[in-house]
Amino acid sequence: MEYQNFRNHLSKTLGVPTDSLEVCSTFYEAKAVKKNEIILSEGEISDSTFFVEKGLLRMYSIDKAGKEHVIQFAPENWIISDTTSQLLNEKSRFYIEAIEESTIVVTKEGFFENLAKVYPDVAEKNQRLMFNHIKNLQNRVNSLISTTAEERYLEFLKKYPSLMLRVPQWMVASYLGITPESLSRVRKELANKKFII
Amino acid sequence: MEYQNFRNHLSKTLGVPTDSLEVCSTFYEAKAVKKNEIILSEGEISDSTFFVEKGLLRMYSIDKAGKEHVIQFAPENWIISDTTSQLLNEKSRFYIEAIEESTIVVTKEGFFENLAKVYPDVAEKNQRLMFNHIKNLQNRVNSLISTTAEERYLEFLKKYPSLMLRVPQWMVASYLGITPESLSRVRKELANKKFII
Repeated sequence: MEYQNFRNHLSKTLGVPTDSLEVCSTFYEAKAVKKNEIILSEGEISDSTFFVEKGLLRMYSIDKAGKEHVIQFAPENWIISDTTSQLLNEKSRFYIEAIEESTIVVTKEGFFENLAKVYPDVAEKNQRLMFNHIKNLQNRVNSLISTTAEERYLEFLKKYPSLMLRVPQWMVASYLGITPESLSRVRKELANKKFII
Repeated sequence: MEYQNFRNHLSKTLGVPTDSLEVCSTFYEAKAVKKNEIILSEGEISDSTFFVEKGLLRMYSIDKAGKEHVIQFAPENWIISDTTSQLLNEKSRFYIEAIEESTIVVTKEGFFENLAKVYPDVAEKNQRLMFNHIKNLQNRVNSLISTTAEERYLEFLKKYPSLMLRVPQWMVASYLGITPESLSRVRKELANKKFII
């Protein structure tokens, strides 16, 4: 069956049978994305959510000096979108780009509403996903103001296992809100403590 | 009329007439809070939202070393709550404390649902408030990883005018995710540039 990860995700998080996607087939489409391809740019209004069937994406902002800042990574089975643009119908402040050649499933506005017509639990479960999104953002704010570079790096390894091997170090440093030099120092110190990274 | 700020807030953000609070009078109560009084502690589950009628509150976390980290300030007309504990029914990781003697209006679970029975627009408008909450969190993450200490301090002054006069400098530094020494340096540099602070 195609898009097995996507179907499993819907089944696991929304309780929707894996063969039920036909009821909202006009509200999603799979898409092949090339490495470095940008699927959302600053200034665009997006009503799409991107599920990563295969590959790796990132969301980032670009500051006035032209420097990139990574907000989120999304490897297989993760969802990535600019929720603010989507929910408030505002121009995005962010970019979403493929770090690797990827296959994504793009869900459009109406997707969940149509699933909910057939599976009434979907509305509540989808809302719970939004609450978890708030929780993740709240935790990220707390982590950025309260933890050391080392603690933040260890959190990153736990949240994104094996991503360190797939992502350039400067992007990880950017995600952590530290300089690449600080990240190198943290990794060296952890290696000295015999911590396996 | 009592709690005028709260009534104006409901009228402005939810389109509810200022004299309409009777329909959900069992779901809110005003409360006087002393300076330094804690109204939410880590480990508690909270179903309350706190509207600041008068005074000043803050939400913060305490790390393993016992150090406090300020997530949010809430002066008059602001709302403060641990949305994660509230929405997901989880134990809070945060504290909410009054920095000044305050009057707050505590709304309990069911408040908005009951208003929505009489004023159907409330549900959608309340959801929009949640979307704005997501936007604020997203902006705060982006700001913490992408801006300099000076830029972040200028954002703070814009977001919370006059708060600098009411809050100890170490709390502001904590909110900005920088050391008190960095904040002093930033303020000195801005003063040298004749920036009025």
